[in-house]
Amino acid sequence: MMLSVGIDLGGTNIKAALVHREKGILKQISVPTDADSGLEATLDRLGRVATEVSAEVKDDVAGVGIGAPGMISLDRKSVQNPPNLPGWDVVPLADEITKRTGLKCLVENDANLMALGSARYGSGRPFENFIMITLGTGVGGGIIIDNKIFRGATGAAGELGHVSIDYQGAECNSTVPGAIEAYLGQRFMSKRAAHEIEKHPENDLYKQFSGDFKKLEPLHLTEAANRGNQLAIDILADAGRMLGYAIVNYAHVLDVRKYIISGGVSQAGDLILKPAFKAAMERLMPPFRTDFEIIPELLGNEAALLGAGTLALENL
Amino acid sequence: MMLSVGIDLGGTNIKAALVHREKGILKQISVPTDADSGLEATLDRLGRVATEVSAEVKDDVAGVGIGAPGMISLDRKSVQNPPNLPGWDVVPLADEITKRTGLKCLVENDANLMALGSARYGSGRPFENFIMITLGTGVGGGIIIDNKIFRGATGAAGELGHVSIDYQGAECNSTVPGAIEAYLGQRFMSKRAAHEIEKHPENDLYKQFSGDFKKLEPLHLTEAANRGNQLAIDILADAGRMLGYAIVNYAHVLDVRKYIISGGVSQAGDLILKPAFKAAMERLMPPFRTDFEIIPELLGNEAALLGAGTLALENL
Repeated sequence: MMLSVGIDLGGTNIKAALVHREKGILKQISVPTDADSGLEATLDRLGRVATEVSAEVKDDVAGVGIGAPGMISLDRKSVQNPPNLPGWDVVPLADEITKRTGLKCLVENDANLMALGSARYGSGRPFENFIMITLGTGVGGGIIIDNKIFRGATGAAGELGHVSIDYQGAECNSTVPGAIEAYLGQRFMSKRAAHEIEKHPENDLYKQFSGDFKKLEPLHLTEAANRGNQLAIDILADAGRMLGYAIVNYAHVLDVRKYIISGGVSQAGDLILKPAFKAAMERLMPPFRTDFEIIPELLGNEAALLGAGTLALENL
Repeated sequence: MMLSVGIDLGGTNIKAALVHREKGILKQISVPTDADSGLEATLDRLGRVATEVSAEVKDDVAGVGIGAPGMISLDRKSVQNPPNLPGWDVVPLADEITKRTGLKCLVENDANLMALGSARYGSGRPFENFIMITLGTGVGGGIIIDNKIFRGATGAAGELGHVSIDYQGAECNSTVPGAIEAYLGQRFMSKRAAHEIEKHPENDLYKQFSGDFKKLEPLHLTEAANRGNQLAIDILADAGRMLGYAIVNYAHVLDVRKYIISGGVSQAGDLILKPAFKAAMERLMPPFRTDFEIIPELLGNEAALLGAGTLALENL
């Protein structure tokens, strides 16, 4: 079949798309997740958006693919303890959606589906092997090997944000000190930046926030850097170097040469990606430098929906 | 076929074995590599040992598998810049051996073949997915996914010794500061140990070497630790913790739960493996702790020969 439903289950919003194998997203809707209303209500809402987005073409739809945070079972049927969805524990998500919609369903980790969406519709198209790093609230990862998601022994591979570059390093949401998420996850990056800016009351960024950096986000750094603010440029470059060091670790394990960067923080573009590339090239073993590239993903969040649709199209 | 030739091409010795698919090694010979005699002479020597070890059964031999240090081409035919083999550059090793022996031949990275040997004949037999970490002069790695060597985009995956646990860390033979090889590679581990022992002139190990630690090896630490020397116990435990931190990085990338440790330094056994296990369990994300194990490989160097034989048996 040529059509499927792709759903991105986020802590804030549920997004659903009708995905066409060749044409991509035909139609898209978004509703609040309202996770506080409880598991059943959220499941009902997921069922409703799946039904709604495919209403006119129900018989032509291969099924529903859902991108969810958290650990996904090896059979892609259930999700375990997704962050930001309190009370979920282990949920047989695919069966619950089938019960509510009559459509077959599979679930996959959202960062993995970003990678799959990129592989079929985005910057990943030219590559058989690449790694997608999503710089959002956390740092997510998806590994594409031989054009498929690499899943590991139990389906949990690609927790790239929880790879450490400093065993004595900074703490974050991770179990691992010095996890790359502690340097590039949105909240931790903002905190590190605030710590730097506090030392420079003469800087425009200090003045912009009147010394109170609770609302500082990476986007403000990017804006300031684009205005020529050297401190912002340096902070972003420092984060980029850390990303480069993490990429060296991924590369030496996996022998993958192409790195595609997505997520909100990646809007800093070359301000992060160039220092990352330089730092990685300095530290990669020479053979691993051949064909090495760090590339932005331009699809934005649509990559996740396209990946979710692809999951259904290729496996249902 | 049931028979093959497995060769382990080391910087010091060439070892060759006649390998039986079910019975393992039937016969084994070893000659000095004598790398200084030049490429052609070493190739001739490789051809001669392959012919010699299979002389009585030549028509029943599937072919020759060779484990070599350095980068192996994706088609497993040639080897690039193997360390300790000066003047090798890019050598079409498989074709050179076929020319000399009339036997088909494939080449693979020696650490990958240790893993393959373990998968078929050693501690790896029960597992579909595991990682072999070889603690020798350097730190090598082999990744087994779905019962096969995981090779990555160009065949160079599994350079686990060059994964960093500290981006500002110790330097070693690696391009990467803080590479795990800087903590557990034989020479670097000895150096770090010497540095500690120097601070303790009252310690038995200091007296054993009269303060001159050029000849100190990890084996001496193991012996002293087994005699109850607390300093040696602490040094080995510290190395073990570093290994544990590196394993957390591998695990979060690959979602592999079984780690098999081989190589000379692994003779320290639980003195290293227990602290490694404890450190890893403290830092792994909770789902990754399920079924997590660190296990020694008991085959020793025979794993490499068995892996080389298996390479030929399963691919020629």
